[in-house]
Amino acid sequence: MASIAATNLVCKKHLQLIAFQFAFIGIVSCGNVLIWPTEASHWLNIKIIIQELIKRDHNVTILVSNASLFIKPKAESAEKFEIYSVPFTKNHIESLIKGIIGLWLDNKPTTFTFWRFYKELGKQVRKWHDLNRQMCDGVLGNHDFMAQLKRSKYDLLLSDPVTLCGDLLAVKLGIPFVYSLRFSPASTVERHCGKMPSPPSYAPAVLSELTDNLSFGERIKNIVSYYLQDYVFQSYWGEWDFYYSKILGRPTTLCETMGKAEMWLIRTYWDFEFPRPYLPNFEFVGGLHCQPAKPLPEEMEEFVQSSGEHGIVVFSLGSMIHNLTDEKNNMIATALSQLPQKVLWRYKGKKPETLGTNTRIYDWIPQNDLLGHAKTKAFITHGGTNGIYEAIYHGVPMVGIPIFADQPDNIAHMRAKGMAVELDFNTMKAQDLVDAVNMVVNNFTYKENAIRLSQIHHDQLVKPLDRAVFWIEFVMRHKGAKHLRPAAHQLTWYQYHCLDVLAFLLTCATVTLFIAVKCCLFCCKKCGRIVRKRKTE
Amino acid sequence: MASIAATNLVCKKHLQLIAFQFAFIGIVSCGNVLIWPTEASHWLNIKIIIQELIKRDHNVTILVSNASLFIKPKAESAEKFEIYSVPFTKNHIESLIKGIIGLWLDNKPTTFTFWRFYKELGKQVRKWHDLNRQMCDGVLGNHDFMAQLKRSKYDLLLSDPVTLCGDLLAVKLGIPFVYSLRFSPASTVERHCGKMPSPPSYAPAVLSELTDNLSFGERIKNIVSYYLQDYVFQSYWGEWDFYYSKILGRPTTLCETMGKAEMWLIRTYWDFEFPRPYLPNFEFVGGLHCQPAKPLPEEMEEFVQSSGEHGIVVFSLGSMIHNLTDEKNNMIATALSQLPQKVLWRYKGKKPETLGTNTRIYDWIPQNDLLGHAKTKAFITHGGTNGIYEAIYHGVPMVGIPIFADQPDNIAHMRAKGMAVELDFNTMKAQDLVDAVNMVVNNFTYKENAIRLSQIHHDQLVKPLDRAVFWIEFVMRHKGAKHLRPAAHQLTWYQYHCLDVLAFLLTCATVTLFIAVKCCLFCCKKCGRIVRKRKTE
Repeated sequence: MASIAATNLVCKKHLQLIAFQFAFIGIVSCGNVLIWPTEASHWLNIKIIIQELIKRDHNVTILVSNASLFIKPKAESAEKFEIYSVPFTKNHIESLIKGIIGLWLDNKPTTFTFWRFYKELGKQVRKWHDLNRQMCDGVLGNHDFMAQLKRSKYDLLLSDPVTLCGDLLAVKLGIPFVYSLRFSPASTVERHCGKMPSPPSYAPAVLSELTDNLSFGERIKNIVSYYLQDYVFQSYWGEWDFYYSKILGRPTTLCETMGKAEMWLIRTYWDFEFPRPYLPNFEFVGGLHCQPAKPLPEEMEEFVQSSGEHGIVVFSLGSMIHNLTDEKNNMIATALSQLPQKVLWRYKGKKPETLGTNTRIYDWIPQNDLLGHAKTKAFITHGGTNGIYEAIYHGVPMVGIPIFADQPDNIAHMRAKGMAVELDFNTMKAQDLVDAVNMVVNNFTYKENAIRLSQIHHDQLVKPLDRAVFWIEFVMRHKGAKHLRPAAHQLTWYQYHCLDVLAFLLTCATVTLFIAVKCCLFCCKKCGRIVRKRKTE
Repeated sequence: MASIAATNLVCKKHLQLIAFQFAFIGIVSCGNVLIWPTEASHWLNIKIIIQELIKRDHNVTILVSNASLFIKPKAESAEKFEIYSVPFTKNHIESLIKGIIGLWLDNKPTTFTFWRFYKELGKQVRKWHDLNRQMCDGVLGNHDFMAQLKRSKYDLLLSDPVTLCGDLLAVKLGIPFVYSLRFSPASTVERHCGKMPSPPSYAPAVLSELTDNLSFGERIKNIVSYYLQDYVFQSYWGEWDFYYSKILGRPTTLCETMGKAEMWLIRTYWDFEFPRPYLPNFEFVGGLHCQPAKPLPEEMEEFVQSSGEHGIVVFSLGSMIHNLTDEKNNMIATALSQLPQKVLWRYKGKKPETLGTNTRIYDWIPQNDLLGHAKTKAFITHGGTNGIYEAIYHGVPMVGIPIFADQPDNIAHMRAKGMAVELDFNTMKAQDLVDAVNMVVNNFTYKENAIRLSQIHHDQLVKPLDRAVFWIEFVMRHKGAKHLRPAAHQLTWYQYHCLDVLAFLLTCATVTLFIAVKCCLFCCKKCGRIVRKRKTE
């Protein structure tokens, strides 16, 4: 075969992947990747991809605002940080997060209250979008900063689209971009911008807490959820169309720009998701952050070993919940004190008075290592995707106490797959928590299902992290992944649903029917006249 | 983690895949795989999977009728053959194949003749189904043979569903089954039985020769193709419902049984396919048979080397075309003699009188090795999937002369991707063939596109054959792949399309509107009366 350069961008370790049968000319350097991250657990997840990219000799630059809450630029680290200025502070982000959590805690949406809930949520979303817009301005409105980014000649931008503008920045820089995404409301972005089909008869809308086994009533709820969330999305995210058009200097929409993503790395997999249709430029890489357990710190290992045959329970409500009310605090501590297991509780708040001798509170726990410990019997969790995947990875059954965002939906998935029991954070009593833990520990079905899901998770031909990085490198090598992009992107909504074709065929059928009827009537009249004429003769 | 056996079926070489974090109890032996193959090129493809399974220490048994044309049982081979009796001979199959090819050659379907064509094709399909039914009876109706198969305790059946009954046999034996499939007419089996969504606005119907870039008229043709082929499928394949119900002893349908496939190994990939939605239990493994080129036989290598800088052209119309008319024969030979390249022509028929000195005819050629040769400039092909994939693998542009079945559609794909020029077998003249070869050799765009597709094909994280075998082994390890099976299988067609929900919502809306109108009218009347009453007062 002719000696033709496939690309000039291949990392030394991965050369063999595509070197077969091809000779390369001009291997210049490894990839130059720009990251547009999102705060909180999103950052924890994308950080794993960043570390792997660096391990594979790529240069990684992270764009971070000077008000970032979770992303802490370090001077001497393998990744480079580009810090841009925003006119708000960390406190703004903190109070917004508090507001969102508070809303969910005080107004947990039900079938009859979700309309009111979504209206309230919309206000928080608008606040977030205000901050997000200031972040966009901090980069896109800063000409010197943009010129500097352009000079850096990035090969790809990896964006978490919960913080908008990553896509817009990539388009402005003229480079391909890849999404790392857990979900968007009603999967509107995946469906309308990414063109992923979602049959409402068995693909449950996100946040709906439904499964793929839908009764008639649940299918009604599912369809309503899709339309309602689509409406909410359009109401609040639709405002970005103007901003995107202004920046690009031509009429466009948020959705059109987001639809240019070369690959969608979705942070779930079929151990967690219900089987559903997807497109070839979607890759499900859930659990990419999971790793085999490392040894625990000495003191912690001693405490864990002291649990004897009862083992331990790991308890965390995530990094966002710092303080509980004294009442809730004591109720939980009372419940935990009644368990035969030793409990490791990650909690930064006030130490509860009723704390049992079997429970220890930690500011931070090595959650993955604890879940992978042989003594671990159960995981009490708020149901964040990262924690859920660590539990799946290590096959640990869960008690879910979801609080906000996708957490109730995540726990609904795990409940449906027989790996979790769910409790209501607002109404649960101490005895409920005790019963729930005893249930997942003593009823072996939960452990069996946890192991089954864990086996599914481990029995993949290529690990999720390797798949994620492969597609990032693929897009860099080929300057895109156009061969995976469905032609649906070129169609209007009525063309996509073939409504114009149906209208045409219906019109044809109607005209044909009309002509046929007219012909018949004409013939009948003619015949009638002849008969009458004959009779009169 | 508890020491729980994931499964008792793991091959030594692949233990590491799932051994991580799990201990296995009772590793008994490697898999016991039963094969239900199809004749001709289908057999060549599935044979590669069989060889790989054997290489990985699985026991493979191939079910073959005593009238098989292409599958030749060997006494001393790694694979075992189980031969069953059928009341027809090789000649029956041969004449049926001739009939199908003849039909396509004499009545190539066009927009205005496809209805007549499909009616004629239906007659051939019925003849094939008669033979197929006798094959089913040869296995399922032979109690001793069935008892013997049951005793063999197979772990999985791998079936090519172009020959029906593999699925039925698997259900009777109580074992999971996996399909190896290129396509079914209108992808009816994939769509209706496998539940793979196919938006007609951009997913072209198979055999339609359409691409994913559809004009308004082409979308009409596409929708009509879907419905027409669905109708043809139901008309001819629908007759199997009775047979399947009789064998299973309960009312069922062909589609219901086929829908039980654990995995669908589709023999294409995104280098060939247009991007379209699919399901997690579909794996696209096109080109699994392709390999790096091996050295040619000495005489052939000498001839190839004698071509100098002009290089060679490889020409084959596949294994089904043995004889051409003298006129066609000589016309082709004349055309080939005018090429500056040396030509290697695979042809079993009469030597044409006009054969040029630059052309050599061979009974058989090492096609993959020739296409992978550095001297190869072009491939003249009938457009079978296997040959097309060898050309993609080695990046060789093509002149397509499609004859029957999926060949015109295959060449339409390659034409759309800029890697092939198409000629009409019935109407082409010598000069057309010369021009076509010169075009793909001298216009560098064809070579560029061929290399681009080749790069896409090679730049996969896992080779197609490894992916195919992984999923076969996965199904054996887990006794299925239920976690990938969409819940759509549990829905009726109207539930799937949510027609019942829409009807309900429409009824609700109508009743609400009716009540609202009635209330308004009642109020108006009431008000009217009061006004009139006041006026009269």
